[in-house]
Amino acid sequence: MAETKPSLFTSLSPALLHLYDINHTAVVIIDVLRATSTIATALYNGARCVIPVDSVAKCIELGKKIEAVIAGERDGKIAEGLEYGNSPFEYPREFIEGKTLVLTTTNGTRLLHMALERGADYVVTGSFPNLSVVSDYLLSQNRNVVLGCAAWKDRTNIEDLLFAGAVINKVKSHFTIHCDSSQIAETMYLKAKKDLFEFMQEKNATHYHRLMGFGLEKDIRYCLTPDVANVLPFYEAGKLQIR
Amino acid sequence: MAETKPSLFTSLSPALLHLYDINHTAVVIIDVLRATSTIATALYNGARCVIPVDSVAKCIELGKKIEAVIAGERDGKIAEGLEYGNSPFEYPREFIEGKTLVLTTTNGTRLLHMALERGADYVVTGSFPNLSVVSDYLLSQNRNVVLGCAAWKDRTNIEDLLFAGAVINKVKSHFTIHCDSSQIAETMYLKAKKDLFEFMQEKNATHYHRLMGFGLEKDIRYCLTPDVANVLPFYEAGKLQIR
Repeated sequence: MAETKPSLFTSLSPALLHLYDINHTAVVIIDVLRATSTIATALYNGARCVIPVDSVAKCIELGKKIEAVIAGERDGKIAEGLEYGNSPFEYPREFIEGKTLVLTTTNGTRLLHMALERGADYVVTGSFPNLSVVSDYLLSQNRNVVLGCAAWKDRTNIEDLLFAGAVINKVKSHFTIHCDSSQIAETMYLKAKKDLFEFMQEKNATHYHRLMGFGLEKDIRYCLTPDVANVLPFYEAGKLQIR
Repeated sequence: MAETKPSLFTSLSPALLHLYDINHTAVVIIDVLRATSTIATALYNGARCVIPVDSVAKCIELGKKIEAVIAGERDGKIAEGLEYGNSPFEYPREFIEGKTLVLTTTNGTRLLHMALERGADYVVTGSFPNLSVVSDYLLSQNRNVVLGCAAWKDRTNIEDLLFAGAVINKVKSHFTIHCDSSQIAETMYLKAKKDLFEFMQEKNATHYHRLMGFGLEKDIRYCLTPDVANVLPFYEAGKLQIR
């Protein structure tokens, strides 16, 4: 009986994604700080769609062509030539409603493109702000799942792992999980869930450290808050749109 | 002050080893189930040296040439053409004392050769049976450290992570650790340390599952026991020898 359930795997780094079969699989792109939190937030606040691109040059070119907001970061700061960055607070309803956002980031949008190149056909983005809707989506599909952590330049990070763990904690009874990375993720989440921010601080998580150095405590706290932008960004025909 | 300490990183998979600088660095090869536990045990029981090779063919060829014990596994079983496998119980003193062991394994010896190819100059092997001596070695060197998990066909596993965490727990005050993987390792170890075997069972660790299927509970229990073969296998001139 157990073996008839769909499988669930967690990929701890883009450099490990090739180990998992992602065809006919729901792939969740996870970049908690901050790309996928910001994508959920912009769509929740009424953005028409988010177009993830893998280079600053493409971002600028496409932005001009379709008159979109062009945004993105490299190494945690607004990339040169772009107008906006990677903070969810840059995309309130009064600014982003009805607009298209073209976004490029160091890790999250890169992983998304890697998944597409490998033939992923069901790609959504996940973050604490849309935890429940992502989990519900996975439960609603009778389909294998890969939770893809964007990490930081291929190094596994705590916050993406915690989000994977939060999803697993919600959906595990519906999946067959023969995957140590998934067990690690859930164990870490159960340890951290009482206060995710405090946990990140206590562990001196590298990304916590980096963003605190930029004065971005507010961003970190928001990006660790479940269900404050509960929409499902689904990738289709080059765009992330609410489904 | 903190920044003058040497650095410590944990590589969760051979596929991530390239992210870390391993020159002038102590690299600990970790393959808890069972290669590095067996290497420590064979040397502890008097083997003259262990020669790790990366293919069964090389193992057979070299074994003939130097009249050594040839051993190794593929997918957890004795590889075809070899005489012995990857169980520490195959190498009691009465058998292995004074002999040379040529060993090839799916993950551990492969990672060791990857590290050598990348120019690692201080390579040791670590496992629970030699936890304290490995930790003491790292403390005695004023040198950066990379803890390299052998994983299973590049997929991160719980037991190698737990060993990395056990080492970190012992040595952390002497190192600068800006590495989420290391934080994850120590957190997991602290959660598991009361009963490592029970933890592996509770999490249905993939390798636990695989070896239990082969009836190897005794091997798992031994390989999770600290300090029962407390020697330091140090790699030099093609051989692992006690240092």
